[in-house]
Amino acid sequence: MKFVCKKKNLSDGLVIATKVISGGNTLPILNNILLKTDKGRLKISSTNLELAINTWVGGKIEEEGEITVPARLANDHINNLLADKLEISTEKQTLFVKGENAETHIKGLPAEEFPLIPEIGDALLAKIEGKELQRAIGEVGFAAAFSETQPEISGVLFNFEGKTLTLAATDRYRLAEAKVNLAEAAAASKQIIIPARAVNEISRSLGSGPVEVYLKEGQVCFRNLDTELISRLIEGQYPDYKQIIPQNYTTQAEIERVLFIQSLKAASVFATENYNIELELTPQTKHVVMKSQSAQAGDSEIHIPAEVSGQKNSIIFNYRYLLDCLNNLSDEKISLRMISPASPAAIVPAKREDFLYIVMPIKI
Amino acid sequence: MKFVCKKKNLSDGLVIATKVISGGNTLPILNNILLKTDKGRLKISSTNLELAINTWVGGKIEEEGEITVPARLANDHINNLLADKLEISTEKQTLFVKGENAETHIKGLPAEEFPLIPEIGDALLAKIEGKELQRAIGEVGFAAAFSETQPEISGVLFNFEGKTLTLAATDRYRLAEAKVNLAEAAAASKQIIIPARAVNEISRSLGSGPVEVYLKEGQVCFRNLDTELISRLIEGQYPDYKQIIPQNYTTQAEIERVLFIQSLKAASVFATENYNIELELTPQTKHVVMKSQSAQAGDSEIHIPAEVSGQKNSIIFNYRYLLDCLNNLSDEKISLRMISPASPAAIVPAKREDFLYIVMPIKI
Repeated sequence: MKFVCKKKNLSDGLVIATKVISGGNTLPILNNILLKTDKGRLKISSTNLELAINTWVGGKIEEEGEITVPARLANDHINNLLADKLEISTEKQTLFVKGENAETHIKGLPAEEFPLIPEIGDALLAKIEGKELQRAIGEVGFAAAFSETQPEISGVLFNFEGKTLTLAATDRYRLAEAKVNLAEAAAASKQIIIPARAVNEISRSLGSGPVEVYLKEGQVCFRNLDTELISRLIEGQYPDYKQIIPQNYTTQAEIERVLFIQSLKAASVFATENYNIELELTPQTKHVVMKSQSAQAGDSEIHIPAEVSGQKNSIIFNYRYLLDCLNNLSDEKISLRMISPASPAAIVPAKREDFLYIVMPIKI
Repeated sequence: MKFVCKKKNLSDGLVIATKVISGGNTLPILNNILLKTDKGRLKISSTNLELAINTWVGGKIEEEGEITVPARLANDHINNLLADKLEISTEKQTLFVKGENAETHIKGLPAEEFPLIPEIGDALLAKIEGKELQRAIGEVGFAAAFSETQPEISGVLFNFEGKTLTLAATDRYRLAEAKVNLAEAAAASKQIIIPARAVNEISRSLGSGPVEVYLKEGQVCFRNLDTELISRLIEGQYPDYKQIIPQNYTTQAEIERVLFIQSLKAASVFATENYNIELELTPQTKHVVMKSQSAQAGDSEIHIPAEVSGQKNSIIFNYRYLLDCLNNLSDEKISLRMISPASPAAIVPAKREDFLYIVMPIKI
């Protein structure tokens, strides 16, 4: 192999490919990336056996070939070279890197040892605006469960139907759902479950441009111009979460998101043992009352400015479930909606309809 | 006690006082801060028995008094309150905090249980520009040893002599020395050794305004308008480090600091086992050659743009000792000076004389 390119382009590709590698794998080849000339570009591949990344770097191929080298080492080294242009080439199992100011030899492993990354083909399922995909993943990704026993809810549901993609994640104590409008209807109605870790990686790696989605036999591929992420799917049926979403609420409070977060943090110092904080909503008042107490440490009562309407009501939450949601939104105001101390409550943005968070109260 | 003040002022004081408390002390009182009315202001005190902080908050005293409360809890809570003004008061061992939107009770411990913080008195040793003190501490603090067996070098030497304060720190493999000009001569010539952790805290807490230094029986106090830090001194004689500073060098290279750092990072990926990197300085060339190699991983040779003069020479360093120094400077260019592969080498800023770093080579 012999390939010449701008150092910056190679660096950018290495950064993307290295993200998926956790390091310290006992099987050395899994700590490596595969470099391979591919239709006029250099393809960099990495995999953790659940999620694989292929990313392509533009440049000039002088000789076709392939090799694998340790991902972190190559990334840390090449990123810090002073060169503008680099020539990379192979001699047996060694990668040569040459720049204006540097010459490097990185010992690698044969490309044949690298795990096979599934080929996905060209059956397009849908096109998504990358920025919207990132927004929706950010709004739901945190809510998935870390569950070995219930693999379905350790993933994020992607529901393609007509011109709408709905993402949902739950750990049975709370549920986050975000909707994305598609410019064109999806090629088919499909419900797939993608591991939560892979979903967060997709968001980080694909940027804000258009993203295409492809499906094939237990695998999904998200692709932009230079990069594709291929994840295995989680088998099984996603829980029918729609049934727990209340149809009507009796009490509502509109609150500035940042003030809500700040007050939760203040109240939380007295809720270190049980995570419980109590909210009291009294109509026509200009605030929500937030109470927390600890037998050992003390107690606090905070009045958060708010517009409260509906019936008088109160509810107890695990404050971390509220913070998780509020920290992942960017809206100025949110609306807190509830029915009774024992019923699920909702958080929705005050000015848009494409996100919903359901959180179970603590019953005492 | 009853005290009224701006929330921001109280928050700022709590942040400063809380820094010194590591948390999780088995003696609960050491996790607490002492709040005490003091000559028209509120004094907040904290101590880890090595370093103590007193910081004063302006406001209105309505009733004198004192109490101790958990430092982190009080800090995290009060920082996040929405109030502009706060009233704090005590009832038995409980601190009441009242703001426009909040009322809090924090359970405390009696002020009498709080450790005595030494009184330092008013025998001024020297006045220092805070900004210069921060600069000098940043440039030497990292070089002190983590040594239980050699307590003297686990501290930073402060040498007051005439109009010069000299700071020095060493772990016997490297030495950092920084000088600070004093506007007025010190009241006496004094050499004191301050624990490195305390020194770094002084730098963080006192800001860039004028700082006064007071000495008394095994204690030193650094004081600005609102805050003082009182540290115990380390007993013993600081090593006579001047003798290892070379008087003349035979080879010199002037290098851009950022390029030097970047190249060290690139080279370091091949020096993970022994930390060795080799530098070759050849006069009249326009670069320093940096070599690193690993039997397992590979090798690299990097040419760092530089002005080299004097004799041809080469030397092997532990790259982490170079990075420690370079990362703590802010100069655009530095000068690397050496005598032979077996002699200590020096790093000095290209354009100022008030900092010197001596690093021992690795002899192979």
